[in-house]
Amino acid sequence: MVEENLLSKISSPRDIKNMSLDELEKLCEQIRKKIIETVSKNGGHLASNLGAVELTVAMHKVFDCPEDQIVWDVGHQCYTHKILTGRLNQLDTIRKENGISGFTRRDESIYDPFSSGHSSTSISAAFGLLNAKNIKGEHGKVVAVIGDGALSGGLAYEGINNAGSFKKNFIVILNDNKMSISKNVGSMARYLSAIRTRRLYLKTKSAVDKILNSVPVLGTATRKVILKSTSTLKDLVYNGTVFENLGFMYYGPIDGHDLKALIKVLQVAKEKDRPVLVHVNTVKGKGYSFAEKKPNIFHGISGFDIKTGDYGVSAGDFSSIFGNELSKIARNDKRICAITAAMQLGTGLSYFAKNFKDRFFDVGIAEGHAVTFAGGLAAGGMIPVFAVYSTFLQRSYDQIIHDAALQKLKVILAIDRAGIVGEDGETHQGVFDVSFLNAIPNVTVFSPSFFDEVGVMLKQCIYNTDGVSAIRYPRGTQLYMPEGFKPSCKTFDIYGDYKNCDNLIVTYGRLFSYACRAKEKLEARGIKVCILKLNRIKPIDEKATLFATSFENIFFFEEGMLSGGVGERFNYSLGCANYKGNFDLTAIDNEFVVQATVKDTLHKLNLDADGMEKIIIQRVDNCGDQKEAGYTAV
Amino acid sequence: MVEENLLSKISSPRDIKNMSLDELEKLCEQIRKKIIETVSKNGGHLASNLGAVELTVAMHKVFDCPEDQIVWDVGHQCYTHKILTGRLNQLDTIRKENGISGFTRRDESIYDPFSSGHSSTSISAAFGLLNAKNIKGEHGKVVAVIGDGALSGGLAYEGINNAGSFKKNFIVILNDNKMSISKNVGSMARYLSAIRTRRLYLKTKSAVDKILNSVPVLGTATRKVILKSTSTLKDLVYNGTVFENLGFMYYGPIDGHDLKALIKVLQVAKEKDRPVLVHVNTVKGKGYSFAEKKPNIFHGISGFDIKTGDYGVSAGDFSSIFGNELSKIARNDKRICAITAAMQLGTGLSYFAKNFKDRFFDVGIAEGHAVTFAGGLAAGGMIPVFAVYSTFLQRSYDQIIHDAALQKLKVILAIDRAGIVGEDGETHQGVFDVSFLNAIPNVTVFSPSFFDEVGVMLKQCIYNTDGVSAIRYPRGTQLYMPEGFKPSCKTFDIYGDYKNCDNLIVTYGRLFSYACRAKEKLEARGIKVCILKLNRIKPIDEKATLFATSFENIFFFEEGMLSGGVGERFNYSLGCANYKGNFDLTAIDNEFVVQATVKDTLHKLNLDADGMEKIIIQRVDNCGDQKEAGYTAV
Repeated sequence: MVEENLLSKISSPRDIKNMSLDELEKLCEQIRKKIIETVSKNGGHLASNLGAVELTVAMHKVFDCPEDQIVWDVGHQCYTHKILTGRLNQLDTIRKENGISGFTRRDESIYDPFSSGHSSTSISAAFGLLNAKNIKGEHGKVVAVIGDGALSGGLAYEGINNAGSFKKNFIVILNDNKMSISKNVGSMARYLSAIRTRRLYLKTKSAVDKILNSVPVLGTATRKVILKSTSTLKDLVYNGTVFENLGFMYYGPIDGHDLKALIKVLQVAKEKDRPVLVHVNTVKGKGYSFAEKKPNIFHGISGFDIKTGDYGVSAGDFSSIFGNELSKIARNDKRICAITAAMQLGTGLSYFAKNFKDRFFDVGIAEGHAVTFAGGLAAGGMIPVFAVYSTFLQRSYDQIIHDAALQKLKVILAIDRAGIVGEDGETHQGVFDVSFLNAIPNVTVFSPSFFDEVGVMLKQCIYNTDGVSAIRYPRGTQLYMPEGFKPSCKTFDIYGDYKNCDNLIVTYGRLFSYACRAKEKLEARGIKVCILKLNRIKPIDEKATLFATSFENIFFFEEGMLSGGVGERFNYSLGCANYKGNFDLTAIDNEFVVQATVKDTLHKLNLDADGMEKIIIQRVDNCGDQKEAGYTAV
Repeated sequence: MVEENLLSKISSPRDIKNMSLDELEKLCEQIRKKIIETVSKNGGHLASNLGAVELTVAMHKVFDCPEDQIVWDVGHQCYTHKILTGRLNQLDTIRKENGISGFTRRDESIYDPFSSGHSSTSISAAFGLLNAKNIKGEHGKVVAVIGDGALSGGLAYEGINNAGSFKKNFIVILNDNKMSISKNVGSMARYLSAIRTRRLYLKTKSAVDKILNSVPVLGTATRKVILKSTSTLKDLVYNGTVFENLGFMYYGPIDGHDLKALIKVLQVAKEKDRPVLVHVNTVKGKGYSFAEKKPNIFHGISGFDIKTGDYGVSAGDFSSIFGNELSKIARNDKRICAITAAMQLGTGLSYFAKNFKDRFFDVGIAEGHAVTFAGGLAAGGMIPVFAVYSTFLQRSYDQIIHDAALQKLKVILAIDRAGIVGEDGETHQGVFDVSFLNAIPNVTVFSPSFFDEVGVMLKQCIYNTDGVSAIRYPRGTQLYMPEGFKPSCKTFDIYGDYKNCDNLIVTYGRLFSYACRAKEKLEARGIKVCILKLNRIKPIDEKATLFATSFENIFFFEEGMLSGGVGERFNYSLGCANYKGNFDLTAIDNEFVVQATVKDTLHKLNLDADGMEKIIIQRVDNCGDQKEAGYTAV
């Protein structure tokens, strides 16, 4: 018997309203299959999506979107939501250039009331949406769906603290799978685990009654007396959960794969005139055994074989090189500590975590705390290294200033995923860190282009730099290194013959590899080019600036924001050195960079070899007075 | 009888160890008097300091600093601590140039293990210090003292979440005065108020027993059964507070002005092998009736008459002008909402709060949430205006990018205390916002110099700007406006005769007033100067750049960080317009600006009229080829 294709019947959430429980359960199976197929090809967040299938179906059964609004925290669990809200046919474009996003996006669908990507924003955003409705007198519920991992972020708590005094319905669904990317940590996680085991507790509102009933020696009369006379006891029992203490009614824990139970509890939650938190237990990776077994690996993945569960293992990347180098240093220096904000695997710290347990700290999704905590460790004489993705370091901005740099504390930032990250798109590009670190006093920033530089620069951060220092490196592996080049690991490198050369490329990080290719291409055309590779990008070595002043044309390429970047600063320094030649700066200016492969993105931004060649030819061509005989305009 | 001067006996905390309870109580009186005297002259945080006198004395009685370490959150309650740790004789220099800080400072004393100024950092920092001790095998306790206001910040929660799993002693003292600067808000505040009233609850660890004893019908046998059989009930009672749920033992609430009780509870807390939270109730402004009655006014104050409680009321400042203008707009536009992070008074929103209750949101000390919440309101069709001090906006950096600008949401930032703030010093200078906003796409920034510009620019933000927009203005009042100048409120203004003029000053905000004075001084010397006043500083109008290119010498003055600032960007734009003249940029470069009056600080930074005059004369002098006959070198 061919199974009915329920998926194809759905063009909007209305289409599931009349489905029977049986049909909905079948639908869940089909959705799960579709998600596995899609992610195996396109890559993406698999495990979190598989965990949220029934929850999402139940939500769209109970709530009437888009009048009701669902805000997905992080958004990495929204694939079922996309399937149910008219985006099934675009699912194969997910995370691709011009395709749909791997997260929710306001400009993608009226069913996405808020865009997502970073953690812990949903309660704040949903509460804003709800207040807008409230002021305008509009109907409709607003629901935030947040994971237990995201709940470790302070922003979520700030949202709860603000929303807990609200006098009308507001629903927060806690999607509790015991995981951030790795196992969730912290006392809130432990607490959730404790209430997960309290099976008897609160399926209905008669909690006190149930609990008192469970004490066999208490008669009805006694119970009544307790309920009447001891507000303290009553308070304690009614207000048994943190969430109730903070103003939310609490329902749970509910089996997050039991559609019937989910639908029932959501229907109840919907009717309350108060903030409600529904605690749902889900299994990360549910329904795909490989993902259930290795939810951290299948959290975000680049593609895999459905049958075998085989996934590509990278030959070596900056993260693991960093992790190895840090571990080597830590072996001989007991002051070295490593900190991660729930990214042990991604930042290459697994070996460190295993081997230096007492000096490894996973602080939860709490980047602000990570830096202030590092400040405390440093004030106590340790040398903390906080390994973090560039995009998430944005959350530590004030802490870097206030709790580290201002106090000249030796805090080291290992900034991973610096620069363009590719398919995760706008929310995850690592393009702001250089600009914001540039403005902060007492901060030094290093930028390796190659694996061999990582260890040396890390040691410079640790042993030869005062105050805050950072080493930033891109996602993935190193790129092309010409045979004639050897990294010096000094503040800058010069590559190419600078005598009788008018054109200088200045760059840093992985763009150096593209610059080398561009140089080769240009020299094949008879245009001589020299390259200045900055290794320490803050502060820029004055000698590097001085070296550059002897060139007629300077071309600066930067894989980051133009405003406040190294290029703008380099330009200012040139001016101070009275440079009067041509300065051309290519960087990201006043735009958010959309999803596409890293390669395609750099191409579009003119930051690959083709782009560099094109820009240099344009300038040299415009100048007219070519000294090189062999030059031909394109 | 002359009362013994106990204060003079104290040169370190050791000197109070042997004092009797009576003496300690007298000491508290003398400290209180000293604080009132000092703040009445120097200005500072009065009310919070008066509330923490007994607590601080008790802490130094029980803990042995500096082996034990106390981390004061915000640090605005540390005056007693400074008095007891050898800084009594410097107290009259507090908040003055070269004097001691109004907050704790690592470089000021070994008794200040961490510097402070911003809210909610203490638990994270203290937990870092404690882990450093732990790794090194050192003895000594670490104590964080945090207010109930600071507890509304997510960073505090991130710290609690991380520290709650710790297996050794760690002490957090919750100094609960029911206030941020104004009345504390949010469900945590409501919750604290609820447990404050539970008088019977937990003075010792036998909480369950006490509670069950309070139910008269229960006999001993029944109690025993309950204690044995229902772990649920036991859990609920034992884990009665949020803090216990999150891994802390809870002691409290304790009367924060009862020295004996404080000493006792701290002695108990000190002996626990677990994280402990001690909940202390204090009265903000305690012991000075005017401050007790108006704790918000006396939170931070610029000086007052001790006998009458009279304090200076400013004739008019940018904050109140902003508040008035916003209220005017809100009266006719029901979409306008105002948000504050516990700074209703300081940001000039009191009138708005009273008159547009349903559209006014005090979200607690939670700047990150404020912006994401604003994003939600905007996504729901409202026009939220978040009024915030520049220095605290640093805490919203990622939220501005991720939850507002990226989604092109109409969120308006009213940035108060922009630029140099004076006596609060390094931690509070508003000098980073321009740099960090410059790098963010979809953000527009306006900078008024005068009161009359505030309303017009605010309307431009609200009605003529897409995405995020900001209006930034300094602390205090407007400065000098020459008679011949009328603000246009367009993107830029030109002041002075630009014909036959070689020298152009470019600036924005209140520095324009100094530039006008400098122009007068220079012209008295025969040096012609024209002024370009930027009103919209991001993006810079191309016409403004083009105008500037006709000058031989351009002098840019900026009351903010050089890196990423408007000056650097202006310089880059000049280059794009092929400008080959001289560009001179004066801004804050790679230094944190220390405490002093605003006037003195601007003078030191060469950002007042004298500094501008000096810099321009130097350049014009060096050029040699003066066209102005009347020019005389100084």
